[in-house]
Amino acid sequence: MFESAELGHRIDKATFKKEVPKLREALLLTQAELLRTKKMPVVILVSGVEGAGKGETVNILSEWMDPRHVHTYALDKPTDEERERPYMWRFWRKLPPKGKIGVFVGSWYRAAIVDRAFGRIKNAELDQSMERIIRFEKMLTDEGTLVLKFWLHLSKDAQKKRLKKLESSAETRWRVTDMEWSHFKLYDTFRRVSERALRQTSTFEAPWIVVEGTDPNYRYLTLGKAILEAMRKRLDAPDVPQPPPHTPPLLPAEDRLSILSTLDMSLKMGKKSYSESLAKLEKKMNLLTRHPRFKDISVVAVFEGPDAAGKGGAIRRITGALDARTYRVIPIAAPTEEERDQPYLWRFWRNLPGTGQIGIFDRSWYGRVLVERVEKFCRIQDWMRAYSEINDFEEQLVRSHTVVVKFWVHITRDEQLARFKEREKTGFKRFKLTDEDWRNRKKWDEYEIAACDMIDHTGTEIAPWTLVEANDKQYARIKVLKTMCDRIEDALKKKKN
Amino acid sequence: MFESAELGHRIDKATFKKEVPKLREALLLTQAELLRTKKMPVVILVSGVEGAGKGETVNILSEWMDPRHVHTYALDKPTDEERERPYMWRFWRKLPPKGKIGVFVGSWYRAAIVDRAFGRIKNAELDQSMERIIRFEKMLTDEGTLVLKFWLHLSKDAQKKRLKKLESSAETRWRVTDMEWSHFKLYDTFRRVSERALRQTSTFEAPWIVVEGTDPNYRYLTLGKAILEAMRKRLDAPDVPQPPPHTPPLLPAEDRLSILSTLDMSLKMGKKSYSESLAKLEKKMNLLTRHPRFKDISVVAVFEGPDAAGKGGAIRRITGALDARTYRVIPIAAPTEEERDQPYLWRFWRNLPGTGQIGIFDRSWYGRVLVERVEKFCRIQDWMRAYSEINDFEEQLVRSHTVVVKFWVHITRDEQLARFKEREKTGFKRFKLTDEDWRNRKKWDEYEIAACDMIDHTGTEIAPWTLVEANDKQYARIKVLKTMCDRIEDALKKKKN
Repeated sequence: MFESAELGHRIDKATFKKEVPKLREALLLTQAELLRTKKMPVVILVSGVEGAGKGETVNILSEWMDPRHVHTYALDKPTDEERERPYMWRFWRKLPPKGKIGVFVGSWYRAAIVDRAFGRIKNAELDQSMERIIRFEKMLTDEGTLVLKFWLHLSKDAQKKRLKKLESSAETRWRVTDMEWSHFKLYDTFRRVSERALRQTSTFEAPWIVVEGTDPNYRYLTLGKAILEAMRKRLDAPDVPQPPPHTPPLLPAEDRLSILSTLDMSLKMGKKSYSESLAKLEKKMNLLTRHPRFKDISVVAVFEGPDAAGKGGAIRRITGALDARTYRVIPIAAPTEEERDQPYLWRFWRNLPGTGQIGIFDRSWYGRVLVERVEKFCRIQDWMRAYSEINDFEEQLVRSHTVVVKFWVHITRDEQLARFKEREKTGFKRFKLTDEDWRNRKKWDEYEIAACDMIDHTGTEIAPWTLVEANDKQYARIKVLKTMCDRIEDALKKKKN
Repeated sequence: MFESAELGHRIDKATFKKEVPKLREALLLTQAELLRTKKMPVVILVSGVEGAGKGETVNILSEWMDPRHVHTYALDKPTDEERERPYMWRFWRKLPPKGKIGVFVGSWYRAAIVDRAFGRIKNAELDQSMERIIRFEKMLTDEGTLVLKFWLHLSKDAQKKRLKKLESSAETRWRVTDMEWSHFKLYDTFRRVSERALRQTSTFEAPWIVVEGTDPNYRYLTLGKAILEAMRKRLDAPDVPQPPPHTPPLLPAEDRLSILSTLDMSLKMGKKSYSESLAKLEKKMNLLTRHPRFKDISVVAVFEGPDAAGKGGAIRRITGALDARTYRVIPIAAPTEEERDQPYLWRFWRNLPGTGQIGIFDRSWYGRVLVERVEKFCRIQDWMRAYSEINDFEEQLVRSHTVVVKFWVHITRDEQLARFKEREKTGFKRFKLTDEDWRNRKKWDEYEIAACDMIDHTGTEIAPWTLVEANDKQYARIKVLKTMCDRIEDALKKKKN
């Protein structure tokens, strides 16, 4: 991996001076075109060994381009806010939108490589981390992002020389701390671990470009030209519609039996036992959020289901039990322009609750495999890959001690009609009913198929779906509240062990 | 994942009798078309819980199709031959060629899931195994294979009933052994582990299709129709050329410095020290293969380099030291028709040495990123993804105690010309020189760029390249022999620890 980056590549001053003006002009023009066409976001990772000039290189690059549209992030220790959320949250927050360039110095690779080099994790865990990164980057490139990964390399001798040189000058001494020297002592280990990481993550969609870090001119020109070439290639490519892929089918319906059709929709709860259960469960819910260990977990609740199924009412029975500082309801409508310029999961990542918090999503990321699938707002390949992207997303939540509770609040077709009519009649409910509701209703069967496929593909051992028979609102609300309490209680018990 | 497969799906006898003849006819016609067009190989995995009817289903499927072109493999315990090679070797051997269907009962998923359920491995290792499977299946689908994965599921109750029923009849009692019951005791564990495995490996290219196993009619019809639909979809798809993908560039050449250009091609060895070294090293080589622990490892040696670089001569200096039963030289020329109907790595898998054996590849899998790239025998996306496919392949070799030694035997352009001329002059050498050699020579620069990219992308910590300065044959042969000895010696030392 590092062979070509230990040869002593150099660009002499004269060549450099001659090349740079041309390159800068081309970069600026290309950047302007990117901004105008908003064809894709550009993510540039600048990683590599200590002292290989990551910082300087990134500075030069933003000097060469229009710095208003290049954002550079040197993410070091996570902030409090970041520590309370899944590891990838800090990176999601910084992803550039379409038309812009985001440069990351010290990226999502850093933690796992450092942990492995210091023996804090084993190879299997390093591989696991790399695998998650591959999935994340695959999602980015599938969503259209151009991902460029540069690894600045120094041979052992070159690194030692470089650190000594930095130390010898008063201006640059601050760059070399004990950490740099302690990493240097582990040069061979770092090299082996990095090579393993790079080997696994140098994918077809986002290969590593290993660049020798010794000579600044060589480093600057190489990165500049590689970035220019990659952006030009994408901007110049004609917009050919990709043919739909040949994927195996979802489970064909051999009989009329679907998971939704088997629900007992006649389930009911009398007024008296409803009142009693509600009071008991709301009290329990409140106590759970005051539990001393509640501050160590997060809760994400997802509500999906047909229009008028009573999602809002169920949500209010939860929030009614809670201190307003503990929860936030996130209603999901069509994405904003800002959100459309990002991967579709971005708007959910930005709304993730911290520890000790409950985030309640009234509709959610499942829109991609429900409304976007049925209404053809995205291509078949996009919603089909979403199943595993969503499973990966929820796995990250669960891994960072988030309880993921997912409700499909279900009503029958007849019940929906009755509720629509009721809404039409009642003045203060009329605002809730739109033309879109009537349009969606016509596609009832398609939505039901999409929902069943969704449950099959995203009902997992770590984040199962709870199907709620909601023709009777009282029954439904109690089932939701009880499930919430049970799941949180389980998580608090686990935390103890 | 298993929600829809616990609903009690059934197909009544009358419907079944009505549907089957139509389905069988369609399957037979489709299979005939597949065989005629040789459009792709079809790999069908039938996995799932014990007693869910995997065996019966597979029997019915081959009854319904032309059994001459459906090969079913129920791989149980590995044979001696299989145990001596990487885990995936047994599956590679059985992969169907284009036009044919291979059905695997108990597939590459089985071992890791069982090991995890019995607590012999941890989650991180399960994930690692699943990750390797994803890469393997991605390679298959990238190479054009249709991969269909069925998981036959039974609820806990259904599994218990089924095992009891099988046991109660004299005819089927043999199906239920202690192993089945010991697995049943772990039903919940198996369910959790399987769900984790399925969640991770249900990819866009090869998603799992989970089918309820209780009712045979339902099972047969569902699998039959899903297979038919998937094959038809692929056969009916028009042959649109895929546009080249937008991938980031390889490292651009900013200066004239390449890893090959930095070799000291004047290195030489005098006759006397050559003779002495050769005698010493050949003796050492021979002793190494007689080492008691040599029977626990395999050796794979790869020779690449320009025409007339002296690969054959170097190989003969190795084999000259060996007992003929210890080694095999595998000369790689253009693939045969049989080999062209398989993924490109297939012909190398089939030639892998067992333990205690040395396989010497005179040219190798690197043909894909050398000659196939330069001569445009494959698309850019094909050779670009080959870097990581090759790294995965070699990782499997190394993991199964194979020492992978890779030589790039290099000569200068002038030296090649001199050797070509020499061959023309000398009668017994003339057969070695073909028109193709002269044609390849014209593309010297392109081959050199391809070789440098190859070394950069496949020189890894587990299987590094050794670059051999071979303008002087004696020097080259000693370097090759010494490297072989050193690498084998290292491996034998490691085995001890």
